[in-house]
Amino acid sequence: MITVSIIGGTGYTGSELLRILVNHPKVEIKHITSRKMDGINITKVHPNLKNLTKSKIHKFPDENIKNMDDLVFENISPSNLDSDFIFCATPHGASMKIVPELYETGSKIIDLSGDYRFEDLSLYEKWYNLSHTGELPATYGLPELHREEIKKAQLVANPGCFPTGSILALAPLVKEGIIENRIIVDSKTGVSGAGVNPSETTHYPNVNENILPYKMTTHRHSPEIEKELEKLNNNGNIINNIKLSFTPHLAPLTRGILSTTHSYLKDTDIDRDTIIDIYNEFYKNEPFVRIFEEGAPTLTGVRGSNFCDIGGFEIDRHGRIVVVSAIDNLVKGASGQAVHNMNLMAGFDETEALMYGGLRP
Amino acid sequence: MITVSIIGGTGYTGSELLRILVNHPKVEIKHITSRKMDGINITKVHPNLKNLTKSKIHKFPDENIKNMDDLVFENISPSNLDSDFIFCATPHGASMKIVPELYETGSKIIDLSGDYRFEDLSLYEKWYNLSHTGELPATYGLPELHREEIKKAQLVANPGCFPTGSILALAPLVKEGIIENRIIVDSKTGVSGAGVNPSETTHYPNVNENILPYKMTTHRHSPEIEKELEKLNNNGNIINNIKLSFTPHLAPLTRGILSTTHSYLKDTDIDRDTIIDIYNEFYKNEPFVRIFEEGAPTLTGVRGSNFCDIGGFEIDRHGRIVVVSAIDNLVKGASGQAVHNMNLMAGFDETEALMYGGLRP
Amino acid sequence: MITVSIIGGTGYTGSELLRILVNHPKVEIKHITSRKMDGINITKVHPNLKNLTKSKIHKFPDENIKNMDDLVFENISPSNLDSDFIFCATPHGASMKIVPELYETGSKIIDLSGDYRFEDLSLYEKWYNLSHTGELPATYGLPELHREEIKKAQLVANPGCFPTGSILALAPLVKEGIIENRIIVDSKTGVSGAGVNPSETTHYPNVNENILPYKMTTHRHSPEIEKELEKLNNNGNIINNIKLSFTPHLAPLTRGILSTTHSYLKDTDIDRDTIIDIYNEFYKNEPFVRIFEEGAPTLTGVRGSNFCDIGGFEIDRHGRIVVVSAIDNLVKGASGQAVHNMNLMAGFDETEALMYGGLRP
Amino acid sequence: MITVSIIGGTGYTGSELLRILVNHPKVEIKHITSRKMDGINITKVHPNLKNLTKSKIHKFPDENIKNMDDLVFENISPSNLDSDFIFCATPHGASMKIVPELYETGSKIIDLSGDYRFEDLSLYEKWYNLSHTGELPATYGLPELHREEIKKAQLVANPGCFPTGSILALAPLVKEGIIENRIIVDSKTGVSGAGVNPSETTHYPNVNENILPYKMTTHRHSPEIEKELEKLNNNGNIINNIKLSFTPHLAPLTRGILSTTHSYLKDTDIDRDTIIDIYNEFYKNEPFVRIFEEGAPTLTGVRGSNFCDIGGFEIDRHGRIVVVSAIDNLVKGASGQAVHNMNLMAGFDETEALMYGGLRP
Repeated sequence: MITVSIIGGTGYTGSELLRILVNHPKVEIKHITSRKMDGINITKVHPNLKNLTKSKIHKFPDENIKNMDDLVFENISPSNLDSDFIFCATPHGASMKIVPELYETGSKIIDLSGDYRFEDLSLYEKWYNLSHTGELPATYGLPELHREEIKKAQLVANPGCFPTGSILALAPLVKEGIIENRIIVDSKTGVSGAGVNPSETTHYPNVNENILPYKMTTHRHSPEIEKELEKLNNNGNIINNIKLSFTPHLAPLTRGILSTTHSYLKDTDIDRDTIIDIYNEFYKNEPFVRIFEEGAPTLTGVRGSNFCDIGGFEIDRHGRIVVVSAIDNLVKGASGQAVHNMNLMAGFDETEALMYGGLRP
Repeated sequence: MITVSIIGGTGYTGSELLRILVNHPKVEIKHITSRKMDGINITKVHPNLKNLTKSKIHKFPDENIKNMDDLVFENISPSNLDSDFIFCATPHGASMKIVPELYETGSKIIDLSGDYRFEDLSLYEKWYNLSHTGELPATYGLPELHREEIKKAQLVANPGCFPTGSILALAPLVKEGIIENRIIVDSKTGVSGAGVNPSETTHYPNVNENILPYKMTTHRHSPEIEKELEKLNNNGNIINNIKLSFTPHLAPLTRGILSTTHSYLKDTDIDRDTIIDIYNEFYKNEPFVRIFEEGAPTLTGVRGSNFCDIGGFEIDRHGRIVVVSAIDNLVKGASGQAVHNMNLMAGFDETEALMYGGLRP
Repeated sequence: MITVSIIGGTGYTGSELLRILVNHPKVEIKHITSRKMDGINITKVHPNLKNLTKSKIHKFPDENIKNMDDLVFENISPSNLDSDFIFCATPHGASMKIVPELYETGSKIIDLSGDYRFEDLSLYEKWYNLSHTGELPATYGLPELHREEIKKAQLVANPGCFPTGSILALAPLVKEGIIENRIIVDSKTGVSGAGVNPSETTHYPNVNENILPYKMTTHRHSPEIEKELEKLNNNGNIINNIKLSFTPHLAPLTRGILSTTHSYLKDTDIDRDTIIDIYNEFYKNEPFVRIFEEGAPTLTGVRGSNFCDIGGFEIDRHGRIVVVSAIDNLVKGASGQAVHNMNLMAGFDETEALMYGGLRP
Repeated sequence: MITVSIIGGTGYTGSELLRILVNHPKVEIKHITSRKMDGINITKVHPNLKNLTKSKIHKFPDENIKNMDDLVFENISPSNLDSDFIFCATPHGASMKIVPELYETGSKIIDLSGDYRFEDLSLYEKWYNLSHTGELPATYGLPELHREEIKKAQLVANPGCFPTGSILALAPLVKEGIIENRIIVDSKTGVSGAGVNPSETTHYPNVNENILPYKMTTHRHSPEIEKELEKLNNNGNIINNIKLSFTPHLAPLTRGILSTTHSYLKDTDIDRDTIIDIYNEFYKNEPFVRIFEEGAPTLTGVRGSNFCDIGGFEIDRHGRIVVVSAIDNLVKGASGQAVHNMNLMAGFDETEALMYGGLRP
């Protein structure tokens, strides 16, 4: 049994961490912080979690363990959390102000912001337009690419939602060195990715019956995808200089990111079956990646789950190959992957509390 | 450990039974029948369940237990299922053709159709416009009203989706005898209630940006709600002759039923707090009913979960009281409640495999 | 040709007034006011209206007439508008601060707020929780009930969106005196009714896959519907004391209000055909009311149009009758009806610029 | 005044033709054909058009002109239509069986299928997997590129929905010769593009909360876009051999196509302002193309209208340029463009009956 606290528990990623962790048999939730909601019961803010109590779920003999209906948001200083694991469900820029002191306490940290995703801080500072508070030894928390480092890490930078789906869709092609270096990722995301706070962008009449491209060439997940793909590349010295062009779109749905990747095969003699073999081999031991040899993956197939479904693998007459991935942006794209990282860091079975099917339909 | 089979596994209720049962530690899924899909792996039809294996989830030592990826639809005769429990996820009219022979085998049966919901077969025959094959000792499977009978039953008639939410919203008012006998239920359902087969009614451009009232005065769930409320009534001899008027609407969403009940207080001096006390008392031991003293229950709060959330409790200047319930039509309104019934019939903890929060947002 | 100005042109009703009026051959748009957007071209805020120019549409020889792409929002005092007609697309409470001075200028005024809908100001003050600035001779702008008074009015109070659909659905039943005095209206509205400003209520993930009942017994459109139905009643002395119980729901769609009315026939021998005859007779000369003898009216059938479609007319075994109406809340429920009123007040053909079909699908 | 008939009037394009033509002052609708619906009033199938009568709209003195409520579907042979203009709202493969005999009668024909869009019939036969009945002198009906030929044509092949938006988004770049020959178009379409008939693809629970890529590399609109862009190219001999890679996605909305085009600038010194100048110049006289210099075009901005809105024009660090177009697939992508072609062929003002703003929100 480990103790876990969440910094910033009122947003969607905080909500999802709670939804997942309440079903985790080896986790005791200790603190959930919030300034605005200090003293408020968490089920007032997350009514879907009402009546969910660890004792009911796991029949623990120890009734002292805190349950959902007893948990209140606390305005507590990060350094007083005194927990084995701390999830920072804090915005970009906020994490780097609290992680250094947390790191000193020896707690294991999973940061869901972008603050520790870049080894090259100048890249971070350029794309986030912020001064960074300084380097820390952080591991990029994509288990499919960095499982062994994650197991040993004290600080894990949980990947961005778009990068998770995009990197997993492209990694086998890049690793094999069979595509050219110019890659286009055209992603479609649900509105929950914009967070819990209302804005003109998330106003229902602006979203409904629309598809809104935004930050068409300037989204900060673009360099995050690029640098991870280049790592694959550097290992094998196969492609030099990935040129990743990324355009996200806001779609009229709540959860899910569909990433359509367009790239060009160097050798157009490669056929679809060979491509599928490459993907099956690459992901053969991965519990949360599913390869769809027929048809496209669907967002409802992964909804509420930690799966990344990958499909397409079609090649057109111009040598372009289309590979598509589907994730739930709040689960595999955020909180589910964070718990996956926690499982790895804690030495638990890595699928603990995460092995559920998508809510389809 | 019990063995369980599902007759009719290709539809939405079959899919949900599988999604829930794969996480049930005491259930081995034995057969899933389908004529059309005979021999097809179930994850071809339900791709959300791909890679979900009981051995991964429960770490069973016995690798012989069938897993999702091994399960295939079988065109097998009901009498050859040889299972402890059988779920009939079959249409109205089809169940009554197979349940009698299943009943003879001694298997416990949970029928999700309407065929065994009426003690008075003439009522069934009138509203379903079918000849019934004959009475069997069946229990109406609404645990909140019939828990003890369900525990002893061999055959349970799983309630209709609209009746589940409507009866739970109204039962405390009727039981207390504080409302007049004319009751109006105005329900709004997601499209998954129409089943997996496409039709003009479920054609996306016909549903989207619409709210479609249908069977405005003739829906067969109307007498089902009425007769269950009258049972409460007959017990206490409080109201004579419930006059339940029911109108459903198809709403542009996939899952969920919101039932808005309108009734009139006999004594308008009763205030909202008293009403809330009545509901809290009535449902105080129920694991799957949640009372919302403030605000309205939401469909996302129960989505994918077995909860029935009840709220409103507002009284207007004309003595009308509004009580609103929210359920997931495929879970509490069908497959989740069916598993709840199975847990009761098998003597398991009744919340086993069902204690999850709603997928919100 | 008349000159027309709009006070408050940045919201949805302002937008719709412009969309309709640009196609009106006898209207010159003079001023569109906005404090925040002073000096901004209106097509920046309403990009759907870009390139729409009266000269292109009507081939006017006089190029001096202002066109969409020339119009800018102006922070201009109401008393300086100097227009034949003024639409107040201003919020409740704001209209009554400017209408008195406008009234003095002799301009004809169509107020889209609730400020002049009640003859009994105490009723207004109670339900709107505001002190009123004082009575003015205003006509309730529902042409189907008050056409002749509207033609002669200087000030028209444009009806609320819910009242428009609800009153039209119920008026023939009340007028004929064939229903009891307790009436329930259960309405479902699109999100555009909440206006152009984002809020938690209109945040996409809160609306999508939900149906939200709100102000279940306290919505201020309730007394507005009631007092209009009572006028019908007082004329004929048929029913005393209408008891109108109203509950609105926010539905996941942008435009449209479906109002499901539930009432009880005094004499249950009346059949559906008789009811349909009553409706056909009542609305026989109305250009914007369409009676659906079969099936339900649809929101897409009226979308973008000024029609009110009425259907249902079903009677159940308990004597309850269901009549359903569908309108576009921004057109028949607001701006279209306002232009209809303008046409009547100006002596134009009353259908001018309004005779378009619904955008279906 | 011209007489117009529609072959195949029960689908969405037939419905939209009627919705537009009823407001056209110079058109008399003569026949609307349907085998299945022979004798049925058209407003039974298209209830949005009920009560729309030309005499009400245009105040025609001649009451003999057929009106919406008088029109019935007729099972009439194409050769007996005896009309000045005939719209073939028939499926691919069906048009080429009836157009030759229509052509002989001298009627002007606008064919909405793909049958006459390819000069090179072998290309058609390859992509449509059909034998063609033979060449006829047809003009590709994209007014922005072929206005003068359309004016003189007897037979116009109305463009596909995806090609309309894609070609207009790319034409200025290709014409100027400033991009490389590999172009990717990633399109998102509403479900109305799949037509009026229900299928598994259009089943609401399959569409809602999903984005479905389909025919990812094999959609037959791909060569249609390619050959039109190559014509621009051939004129100026600028790019050889366009390699157009096209992937469509089904999005959870009814109307609209957003096409996101990704191409690479030959010379990365060209800046955004220069690109915008090129587009403004290219489309300066076009009534139905609107250039958005800021932000993205929206589908609601064009909904129900004949506009094609173009925006984006962003260039990223790898020299990729993103240009995005938005159309209503049923209007500019089908029936609106067909009426535009009719106006040109008949010598009418080309904007007649088409100059309406988008239904936003």
